Amino acid sequence: MRDAATAEQTVLQPAADLVELTRALVDVPSESGDEAALADAVERALRAAPHLRVERIGHSVVARTDLGRAERVVLAGHLDTVPACDNLPSRLVDERVYGLGACDMKGGVAVALQTAVTVTAPTRDVTYVFYECEEAAAERNGLGTIAAQRPELLAGDLAILLEPSGGLVEGGCQGFLTADVIVRGRRAHTARAWQGVNAAHRAAEVLRRLDEHAVRDVHIDGLVYREALSAVAVRSGVASNVVPDECVVSVNLRFAPSRSPEEAEAQVRALFPEYEVVVTEAVAGALPGLGRPAAASLLARLGSAPRAKLGWTDVARFAAAGVPALNFGPGDPSLAHTPDEFVPVGELHAVRAALRSWLTS
Amino acid sequence: MRDAATAEQTVLQPAADLVELTRALVDVPSESGDEAALADAVERALRAAPHLRVERIGHSVVARTDLGRAERVVLAGHLDTVPACDNLPSRLVDERVYGLGACDMKGGVAVALQTAVTVTAPTRDVTYVFYECEEAAAERNGLGTIAAQRPELLAGDLAILLEPSGGLVEGGCQGFLTADVIVRGRRAHTARAWQGVNAAHRAAEVLRRLDEHAVRDVHIDGLVYREALSAVAVRSGVASNVVPDECVVSVNLRFAPSRSPEEAEAQVRALFPEYEVVVTEAVAGALPGLGRPAAASLLARLGSAPRAKLGWTDVARFAAAGVPALNFGPGDPSLAHTPDEFVPVGELHAVRAALRSWLTS
Repeated sequence: MRDAATAEQTVLQPAADLVELTRALVDVPSESGDEAALADAVERALRAAPHLRVERIGHSVVARTDLGRAERVVLAGHLDTVPACDNLPSRLVDERVYGLGACDMKGGVAVALQTAVTVTAPTRDVTYVFYECEEAAAERNGLGTIAAQRPELLAGDLAILLEPSGGLVEGGCQGFLTADVIVRGRRAHTARAWQGVNAAHRAAEVLRRLDEHAVRDVHIDGLVYREALSAVAVRSGVASNVVPDECVVSVNLRFAPSRSPEEAEAQVRALFPEYEVVVTEAVAGALPGLGRPAAASLLARLGSAPRAKLGWTDVARFAAAGVPALNFGPGDPSLAHTPDEFVPVGELHAVRAALRSWLTS
Repeated sequence: MRDAATAEQTVLQPAADLVELTRALVDVPSESGDEAALADAVERALRAAPHLRVERIGHSVVARTDLGRAERVVLAGHLDTVPACDNLPSRLVDERVYGLGACDMKGGVAVALQTAVTVTAPTRDVTYVFYECEEAAAERNGLGTIAAQRPELLAGDLAILLEPSGGLVEGGCQGFLTADVIVRGRRAHTARAWQGVNAAHRAAEVLRRLDEHAVRDVHIDGLVYREALSAVAVRSGVASNVVPDECVVSVNLRFAPSRSPEEAEAQVRALFPEYEVVVTEAVAGALPGLGRPAAASLLARLGSAPRAKLGWTDVARFAAAGVPALNFGPGDPSLAHTPDEFVPVGELHAVRAALRSWLTS
């Protein structure tokens, strides 16, 4: 067991062992909003590499090569974690690094940081982005802050987000929309229920349509995006002796990146034309851009087939800036935010090898 | 405007003007749990009448004649009110007494109290019950306390609860049952909704059955009790990106007093055989007992047709003790618990006249 390090003690050695680097990153606590110590350590390590131009924006750090290459790619990862759950410091057990953020996503940050420092003359110019507040409210997201304040720093032909994807390439991401479908009725005492109109009873039809709504497959760049519409909450009830006059069914639509939020909204409204529909959030997805030369080259090197990213990720922030993006990082995404999250040593090495090979040949 | 009276100042004059008596009762605040001052005043007024035997149980007061009559009837009303809502002291406007509790049910208490003190030789023995905590949790109800500690005090051939009934006789009351119908599913991320089973979608069938469930009329003693089954709450939801694994539909059944809570429960279970059903409360109603000589005599005197009481009231506590019961009091029940509640002077006089005539001839 090692103690969680403090900012003053932490001197990262990014060129040394990748597992040790991952553990060192895990051992600097960096819950959302508290990334200063880790950002400081990462910034120091990057500034020690003379081939990189380094900038600090808040507690995010951007480092770039500037070799005049024909292409520029962006490698990005967030520095923050969800709150600790008695899972610090790091542990190495059975070729897995355990600890808060090991999977989501200090393993990916370690790969990017080591690549940044050790690949001094990449065949494509690279922008490395280590950013804050991904696990917090969307408006605090460090990548969003950079996109708003310094959009030129995110420019490139392809972006790779090193979020855990099991070491496979997952192209783009789907968009999502949340909305409330509001069913109205008229209150009455339940002892005279027939004098009212029960909104909960009427909501049966809304839920039936959701149940019968089929998933839809959308093919883009050879990937299959699968759209689904789900009720995620139902709220109704005034008192145990009152016929409720309102029932709110909250729905969540995941839609392919070829469709806009406006199209998604129109789909939901068309399904419930006779009800009030209030859209609470609608965010576009990201196209995979697998046809771009940089992406094709990476995929050829990996040898494994890409798949569509169904959940929404920060790749959509690149897409919004006009940069195609994919997800490629070590770790099982289903372990993210679990107390026992870990990243397999084998995946750390495999992702590092793929990126190194791609950036040096 | 008059100031709200304090306990020390209050000397009720029950034999004088009925409107003044009603106002005096309103002007002694008696929110549930705080009935001591009013119970003291009522007890003093009753003890001043030599034809009554008076007992105090908590903040409830019971007064009885003991003339050896062939029949005994019980007249009952609660002393407490819901919390004040800037509606004290009492006001007399347009032949209506306004103020907290005027309708529910100090008007009825005034009629009972005046009858108790002034009808000194009734043709039926009478037990007057003025009780505490009707507007509070059921286990604090003063009538329940008397039934548990001194059941002989509630004995009789007929009980009349002077809750507001618009001056009409409402026979008995319906029972009620509340239950949770629990629909299960399996959680999944909404980006992969097809890997789960959406419990909210499945609840459509539960709500559809409730919507199609017909009301049922049950005829007893010439009265029509109308049974209804209503969803009163729907609760489902884990997070905006999670397929919910549970949806709870709370239902409320109002059932005729000829059926037991066990029969009511069986009815609900039969409607939802494939779901988990958890009964949270089940309370029997009260048969109207209109065939009893005492009730027939009262109805003959009134000349207006009785109707069934659909909501549950404390008459069920008499029924549970084997005493048929009916509701008969001044005031519009739909005004109960509203800030602007009032009792019409005309109904105060009409109810008093009917009871006096019935008890003296």
